Amino acid sequence: MRTFFECLPCFINQALGSLRNCNATDEQIKDVMHSVLAELSGMDFNVPPPVTAQKIYRIISKTPGLGNPYASKKQQYNRFARELLAGIQKRTATEQDVFSSKVILAIAANIIDFGKNSELSESDVLRSFEKAVGVSIDSVALRNLRQELQEAESVLFLCDNAGEIVFDRFLIEEMPCHKVISAVRGAPVINDATLEDAQAVGLTEMVKVIQNGSDAPGTILKDCSPEFNTVFNQADVIISKGQGNFETLSDITNKRIFFLFQVKCPVIARNSGYPVGTFVLKDNQSAEECTIQTKMEMKNE
Amino acid sequence: MRTFFECLPCFINQALGSLRNCNATDEQIKDVMHSVLAELSGMDFNVPPPVTAQKIYRIISKTPGLGNPYASKKQQYNRFARELLAGIQKRTATEQDVFSSKVILAIAANIIDFGKNSELSESDVLRSFEKAVGVSIDSVALRNLRQELQEAESVLFLCDNAGEIVFDRFLIEEMPCHKVISAVRGAPVINDATLEDAQAVGLTEMVKVIQNGSDAPGTILKDCSPEFNTVFNQADVIISKGQGNFETLSDITNKRIFFLFQVKCPVIARNSGYPVGTFVLKDNQSAEECTIQTKMEMKNE
Repeated sequence: MRTFFECLPCFINQALGSLRNCNATDEQIKDVMHSVLAELSGMDFNVPPPVTAQKIYRIISKTPGLGNPYASKKQQYNRFARELLAGIQKRTATEQDVFSSKVILAIAANIIDFGKNSELSESDVLRSFEKAVGVSIDSVALRNLRQELQEAESVLFLCDNAGEIVFDRFLIEEMPCHKVISAVRGAPVINDATLEDAQAVGLTEMVKVIQNGSDAPGTILKDCSPEFNTVFNQADVIISKGQGNFETLSDITNKRIFFLFQVKCPVIARNSGYPVGTFVLKDNQSAEECTIQTKMEMKNE
Repeated sequence: MRTFFECLPCFINQALGSLRNCNATDEQIKDVMHSVLAELSGMDFNVPPPVTAQKIYRIISKTPGLGNPYASKKQQYNRFARELLAGIQKRTATEQDVFSSKVILAIAANIIDFGKNSELSESDVLRSFEKAVGVSIDSVALRNLRQELQEAESVLFLCDNAGEIVFDRFLIEEMPCHKVISAVRGAPVINDATLEDAQAVGLTEMVKVIQNGSDAPGTILKDCSPEFNTVFNQADVIISKGQGNFETLSDITNKRIFFLFQVKCPVIARNSGYPVGTFVLKDNQSAEECTIQTKMEMKNE
């Protein structure tokens, strides 16, 4: 998808949020924001938002003393998500449809996104998991996903964020693990999951984990490594977590992709057709991707 | 006051809001936003926000076909405010303290600010007037204002926005009109009141109205005409309406200024010490400027 004009204030807020998170000085904030604004003054609106976000985060991370603004948040939320999982793991095992429950939990965990909310708190995450209890996802897409997972010889699971990755691992448990390759970002950006996070939450012990070779908060194929592109092209099914991966892969039609994410902003709401707050499981090769709940909400608008 | 980093997304939103309001094409929006971002990339954070806002609105108004984005909104809200006034005029006349009531109504009308909310609707205005019924303003500042108006030989009343100016006129009725000069912007910017608005609402029939010679959404003295500066310097008391005038005049200590405005953003809240939504009457030479209501709210934070 392309970048909308409404993404502009969001880019600015994301940059400011990152700078606040790593306790940048006023002088550093001023200098970085001047550079970010200069970068935006020449930006291309025909590319997906993560292309521009990548440039912004590079400006921040290259500033001496700032580095990886969300490093401690990533550790905090990997830990918090594991505690959260410990509390609901048993209950999930007794659910009638364990796979479906884990898909919903993996979407609930997608709230752990400091790009969209630099002031995210643990209570925001708890609220998302409370909401997950009553949510329903598109049954047709779910059926297709199950079927594809059975029939596929290779599955590529694109992770999104630290913390969230704990629930990705929990979902991947239900998949034929020998066929699954999981991918993380090639370098830190916002709180996106990297190899370090995959190791920290034990994902590397369960499936093969590869780095995508890119520091974009999404999957920009031409920015990813040739190795990653090979895996991507060879995968029979791709499971794509989060808004950033949706923004960068939503136009791809020659691969079967299942998008799992929460709609966190009006731009994605407009582009995806789901209201803000929707838990989305979207099959890119099915027209019937709306949840029953969502369709009802949209009717009322 | 200086510009805060949090003003940056607001500048962007203001520009986008203006462009949407005059039905700019996507190509126009893209070009204007590129120029606005280039302007912001070199901006000075040590000056008040209206200095930068002035530059942004000049970029918009100089774009062929865009001109004066809020021209029709200004007419609409001058009309709407007059209708609103017609409905409450009689009730106000029976109030125990007519002057105080009119001060509060003039602050209620300060909600008509398309800079802070480009999607403002008539129901937002009605809500502000409903809120005005129960509001209390700083009694010390009010007493001082009354006294200064009696003792002063010259009063300068700085108007803020179209629509709002109807209630400024209603308040000025209670002042010794022969001593009052009212000032409006020198050229259109956002929905700020100009001479045309003063004429439209009959303010020019009541007091002398001067233009300040500037197209900034505030009162930047060095950008104002020598004539305006003379009036400003000679005035014994200045009554300043709105956030933009507060932002540009809050550091002036050698003049007696009474600021009347609604706090409409977190930056002004932090800078003025009043929570968002507060109806402020602030005497720049009194330490006791908080409303009782506000003090209680602040205590609870």
